[in-house]
Amino acid sequence: MAEKRIASDNGIRRLPRYLRILEQMDEQGVERISSAELGRMIGFSASQIRTDFNNFGSFGQQGYGYEVSSLCREIRQVLGMDRGFRAILVGVGNLGRALICNFDFCKLGLHLIAAVDVDPALLGKEIHGLPVLSVDAAVELIEKERIDLAILTVPKIVARQAADRLAAAGIRAIWNFTNTEVADSASGLLVEDMNFDDSLLTLMHYMKNCKETETRPKEMEGAHQRKADADARKKHEKECENFR
Amino acid sequence: MAEKRIASDNGIRRLPRYLRILEQMDEQGVERISSAELGRMIGFSASQIRTDFNNFGSFGQQGYGYEVSSLCREIRQVLGMDRGFRAILVGVGNLGRALICNFDFCKLGLHLIAAVDVDPALLGKEIHGLPVLSVDAAVELIEKERIDLAILTVPKIVARQAADRLAAAGIRAIWNFTNTEVADSASGLLVEDMNFDDSLLTLMHYMKNCKETETRPKEMEGAHQRKADADARKKHEKECENFR
Repeated sequence: MAEKRIASDNGIRRLPRYLRILEQMDEQGVERISSAELGRMIGFSASQIRTDFNNFGSFGQQGYGYEVSSLCREIRQVLGMDRGFRAILVGVGNLGRALICNFDFCKLGLHLIAAVDVDPALLGKEIHGLPVLSVDAAVELIEKERIDLAILTVPKIVARQAADRLAAAGIRAIWNFTNTEVADSASGLLVEDMNFDDSLLTLMHYMKNCKETETRPKEMEGAHQRKADADARKKHEKECENFR
Repeated sequence: MAEKRIASDNGIRRLPRYLRILEQMDEQGVERISSAELGRMIGFSASQIRTDFNNFGSFGQQGYGYEVSSLCREIRQVLGMDRGFRAILVGVGNLGRALICNFDFCKLGLHLIAAVDVDPALLGKEIHGLPVLSVDAAVELIEKERIDLAILTVPKIVARQAADRLAAAGIRAIWNFTNTEVADSASGLLVEDMNFDDSLLTLMHYMKNCKETETRPKEMEGAHQRKADADARKKHEKECENFR
């Protein structure tokens, strides 16, 4: 299915979340769902959901809602989960190992082909069934076979250099865990940053605001106190709503 | 500084990115910046930037732009980086170790106090200078001292149970790496999910579209936005060069 028109980045980023909920419903045997019901479950308005889905094609029928299993299938297609994308993981430190051992790439339709590291002690070994290649062997692999994506988990200090070498070998997309910029505009690389800082700082902002509303000046009483309580509660709820 | 009005979640999530750019400029000795200049560097409109900052207070002066170092200070306050928040990390697997050893919590103003695990072989040991506590010792710590946040890196299967135990002991916020829902709305917990799936699937969507179209539609954001960001930054750098 070809996308009808370009969706916003936020709209695209909402799709995996819709998919998670819809797959759960599909497993539970739910056949149809309206945009209003889905909205209630996920905390968005029905019109938001219709807009998001309309950007990618006409999934639903007005008045009949969406057919859950076919909606799942269509979202998987929009997200490229049916393309058989092939990836290598570069940098077998703690984070690289965590991804290899714990992250379910298969479920997302991504084939993890090999890991890459500079440590001679790791070369030729397997981690969780995945062969560890040298950089030279990886470059040869990228040049000879189709590798769509590199998952970059090297130390920050060598991140840029690793990305350049991968791009020169033919890699076009990087899932970047290095907390640093790995490509400039000339590279033509698609880079998706997993930005831990942004996530933690957003949480800290909400923690701070929730704390502020929890503490009340003691001298406030009666109606003032009740109004302050209500205001604080409202602000807190709004904050927490935004947060979810 | 008290926030003037409720900002959108997206507006809050943009703040760490502004801060990164502004801190770099501050280090380079830049004293003032206009919303237009900052916009060009980051790939947002000047009005978007003014709106974001106005939500949190009146940082700038019309016609004079923003004072970089004081803007950094104010954003740090808004993000709660000056609150001395204290955290524990729960689950010392590969991912937990990666965070302990490689993530710069200090830089964000967060104090990582202890790690927690059920493995008897780890108890009493230190990882990267951080003591590893048993669950019982951690519960005692939370009850006796102020611990604001738990970083949850336990296996998915015990995630909910761990979150419940932490909440019962008095934890109010969780930075959740478990790829599963750890709390419902009634819990009152603040939960920020680090959702690896959503990030990877968004990248796969863009990979698919690039393959399909070979050329990128101009309206695309996200992974493409970063390319635009880099372009804008390059242009700005060129301008600054010319200026010098």
